[in-house]
This record gives sequence, structure tokens and C-alpha cells, in this order.
Amino acid sequence: MSADTLVLATRNQGKLHELARILGQEIRLVGLDAFPGAPDVPETGATFEANALLKARAFAAYTELPAVADDSGLCVDALNGMPGVLSARWAGQHGDDKANLGLLLAQVTDVPDTRLGARFVCAAALVVPDDGIPREWVVTGEVKGRLIRAPRGAGGFGYDPIFQPDGFDLTTAEMTPDAKDAISHRGRAFRALAPFITGSPT
Amino acid sequence: MSADTLVLATRNQGKLHELARILGQEIRLVGLDAFPGAPDVPETGATFEANALLKARAFAAYTELPAVADDSGLCVDALNGMPGVLSARWAGQHGDDKANLGLLLAQVTDVPDTRLGARFVCAAALVVPDDGIPREWVVTGEVKGRLIRAPRGAGGFGYDPIFQPDGFDLTTAEMTPDAKDAISHRGRAFRALAPFITGSPT
Repeated sequence: MSADTLVLATRNQGKLHELARILGQEIRLVGLDAFPGAPDVPETGATFEANALLKARAFAAYTELPAVADDSGLCVDALNGMPGVLSARWAGQHGDDKANLGLLLAQVTDVPDTRLGARFVCAAALVVPDDGIPREWVVTGEVKGRLIRAPRGAGGFGYDPIFQPDGFDLTTAEMTPDAKDAISHRGRAFRALAPFITGSPT
Repeated sequence: MSADTLVLATRNQGKLHELARILGQEIRLVGLDAFPGAPDVPETGATFEANALLKARAFAAYTELPAVADDSGLCVDALNGMPGVLSARWAGQHGDDKANLGLLLAQVTDVPDTRLGARFVCAAALVVPDDGIPREWVVTGEVKGRLIRAPRGAGGFGYDPIFQPDGFDLTTAEMTPDAKDAISHRGRAFRALAPFITGSPT
């Protein structure tokens, strides 16, 4: 692969396209689908930052290319900031969006509206392999809002149908992809990371 | 009812017997089964103390008798202290011990052993109706330990089969009721509250 190739540690095409839009044309972006033998990296960190770094380090080491990874989740006030790093497996099975969302709504049934504040948080890490010591960056983005009790909207994924960002009457599942990118935790984190990506020798 | 009767805000016979053992013979203890019309009190508080007080106040007002209520739960380090006040409805339905325990174990699948520290916490509240201003006390008890990944023991209830108190090789579900009372969060909270109960004019 050419020297200006960047690996994004995901098999999610939506994330690939989102980062590609933010970075523009100069960087060739490939996902993990291009590396069938890439290791599975368990997200064992206590924080989003730790998990993003774990994944970016693992894939930079495996591919010998600069690697970007992100970890994100929903932090609910009434749950002391959980589901947090466990957002994707909140109902027990990894990636079952419907079960995760349903469980969260059931858990807050008796929680007063005043404690339904929540925020989406994303940490994005860039690891550039180098002879000897890899160089590493990690940034975070967040969007504050609140849970609603009945899902609305067909866009997005995960908890988007029950999250209403501050200042909007729409859930993030009711926004267009562009409108969501503009305010989303992942959009903010990727934009904050972009200067390090485009400015980094590869 | 006689003047030395105390209401314990529970329909759980195990809790009634536990408090009776701690208080001794002088106090006549009745549960909510003696008050079929007693209101349902949603546990909407953000803390164990708030919920215990909510319930004790409601039942003291309803019965016009001194009332004790407790709220308790399991606080897990890796979950920022949750399930906490949501312990009894963690899997979404109130009181489904098996589902709650199974969900918690599934959630911590990728969490390293080093972050499986946990504690059981109990807040116990006493509210004594009085002309005008009711008198109120609330105390807490806790027992520190850690989660194990496979349930052990048939005693206790709730999360007991996966909680191993510090200094013991047994889970609280493997202990005799007396041994558990001696160290448990509820035992400690009830014993801390007992002097206020027996010393309070009724």
C-alpha cells in the first residue's frame, strides 16, 4: 500500500465514509475488511480513550500503517455515566442495538425526567508506527442532550432514536447524516484528530 | 395496634425476620401485608438514602405508625457504581433476580478482574409520625468485596451468588443466614438504626 494510506479500525462502512468526508481526498482510507487476518482487540479499557488507543495501537502494529480507531458510547446521568464504555454490549450481547436501547429505556422507567440528561462521547486515537517508538494522539468529542422515553427516527444507529441533543427538537436518528456529523461526538472527535492525520508524516 | 408497633415497609418475610432478630422481643414488627391498601411507592430517588426515606415517609403517613424502610443494591466499580439504586430492575423487569444477575455477568465479560471490585450498600430509614413534624433518621451499611464470574451458592437472593465479600472465600449465597447477617450491608444498617428504634417514643 502507498505511504499515504490510513487504516481505520472498523468494519463499519458508515464510519469509513464519515471519516473520508472529513479528511477529504488526499488520504486513502481503508477499513479492516482489507486485512482479513487482523486480530480481534477486546475493549478492556476503563475509558473511551484507553479503548481507542488499544485498538489503534494493535492495528498500527499489525498493518505497519498509521491507524485510527475510535470508541464511543452514551453516558446517562441517572446511570452514573453508564452505559459508557459498555454501550455496545449493554444488554449482554455485543452490537444488539435494539436490545441495548430497550434495556436502557426499561432501566430508567422510574427515573424522573430531571435526571435523563445524557451525552454521547467519542474518543479517536491515531497511532503512527515509527522505527522504535510509535507516535500517538487521542482526542475526544461529545454532544450533550437528554434521553426521551419513546424512540423516534430511523437514521443513525445504536441509541440515536432516544437521544435528543440540546437545542434540537429532533433525535439524532431524525437528523440527516450531514446535520448529525456537524454536531455529533464522532464528527467532533474526527475533526479534532484530522490535523494530526494530515500533518503527520506517513 | 399497640403503641410499640413498628411497620417495616416490605412484603418480604426474610427481611421481617432479619429485623426482628436484630431488634429482639420488645418491638412488635409488622410488614406491609398487614396493610392491604398501602400505596405503591416508586423508588424515584437518586440515592439509596433518598429511596429509603421516600418509602418510610409514605408508610408512616399511611399507617400513622413508626415506619422503617430500606433500599439497597450492588455498586460495581467497572459500572461506575451501578446497578446501584437500579439493582432490582437492572434487566428491565422489577425483581427478576436471575435476569439481573445474568445481565450483569454478561456486561462485565470483557472487564478485567482488577475492576470487578463491588460493594453491597443498604440505607435504612426510620420515620416516626408526630403531631406536626415527623422525626426522621437514615443510616447506611455496606460490605465490600468483588464479583466472581460464575454464580456459587443457593442462599440469599439477588446478586448474592456472584458477590464474594473481602476476607471470605464464600459468596454471600454460600453463607448461613447468621453469618451473612453479621457482615451484610442490611445487617449493618439495621443494627445501626436499632438504637433509634428502641430509643424512640412511640
